Amino acid sequence: MNYNIDKAFEILEQTPQTLLSLLSNLSDEWIFCNEGKDTWSTFDIVGHLIHCENTDWIPRLNIILSNHEDKTFEPFDRFAQFENSKGKSLANLLEEFRQIRSENLEYLKLLDLSEKELNLKGVHPTFGTVSLKELLATWVTHDLGHIAQISRVMAKQYKNEVGPWTAFISILNT
Amino acid sequence: MNYNIDKAFEILEQTPQTLLSLLSNLSDEWIFCNEGKDTWSTFDIVGHLIHCENTDWIPRLNIILSNHEDKTFEPFDRFAQFENSKGKSLANLLEEFRQIRSENLEYLKLLDLSEKELNLKGVHPTFGTVSLKELLATWVTHDLGHIAQISRVMAKQYKNEVGPWTAFISILNT
Repeated sequence: MNYNIDKAFEILEQTPQTLLSLLSNLSDEWIFCNEGKDTWSTFDIVGHLIHCENTDWIPRLNIILSNHEDKTFEPFDRFAQFENSKGKSLANLLEEFRQIRSENLEYLKLLDLSEKELNLKGVHPTFGTVSLKELLATWVTHDLGHIAQISRVMAKQYKNEVGPWTAFISILNT
Repeated sequence: MNYNIDKAFEILEQTPQTLLSLLSNLSDEWIFCNEGKDTWSTFDIVGHLIHCENTDWIPRLNIILSNHEDKTFEPFDRFAQFENSKGKSLANLLEEFRQIRSENLEYLKLLDLSEKELNLKGVHPTFGTVSLKELLATWVTHDLGHIAQISRVMAKQYKNEVGPWTAFISILNT
């Protein structure tokens, strides 16, 4: 598939509700478990998604669309959620994500980006020149990647409970 | 985590709604794309989940709980959905899945399984003796594995659209 802003919206708009459906009413054991030392729990991942909404997708889009000479993005902080999520419940985070995602998509819609604008460039601090279209396509794959990650983190909690089925459930072996 | 029937229910009960949230209102391009020859689309995966409800979890549970001398499960047909889903829409399949899952969980609740029953054994046609508890734990990881698979199949459609971010979005490289 080629990137298409309407089709990308179909995914981006649904992610808050997907996370609500997947994660509402879960016991703390499901929410706070992870895959081992220095890996993220579901709670950490939702906090990370919020931080992306606040500092990544739209702020970087704004840099690309700006008239600044230097269009280098701010480096992204992969650990910000550990501080920002303190004292909050998963329900708080899911609502915060729903709200900021909705605002960001509303903003993006109003921009009504042209193909020319989608091809404008910015500079990623690690790997250099990228286009606005690449940034926006990444937003979609990033959502889907973290939905898959959350599913994997939770599935792995039963890795020792499934007996010989371990070999058949490939997500347990990644 | 050790397998616990109440905590397992928390996941199993939500899967139909998670799939509805993730997949409703998507263009056909998202629904029917796959990862290449002999791989499954989202449409195929939802059909497979229905076939599991009909022929795997509860039928195998019933074999384990039965008084039959031979408790060998019927081999599972991994390709049944290609025939069974013909002529149906994804919305049809999602509703069919919601209904059969609801019936199966209701049945399981009414059984009110004891720890002793959870440790009863059946025979898997490929890898031999398994316990009811292992079968039921596998049901949970199987749901989560296919939610992750659906996310991955859709994410990969933008693999060539994200430019250098490919390296950062690990789901695109699995």
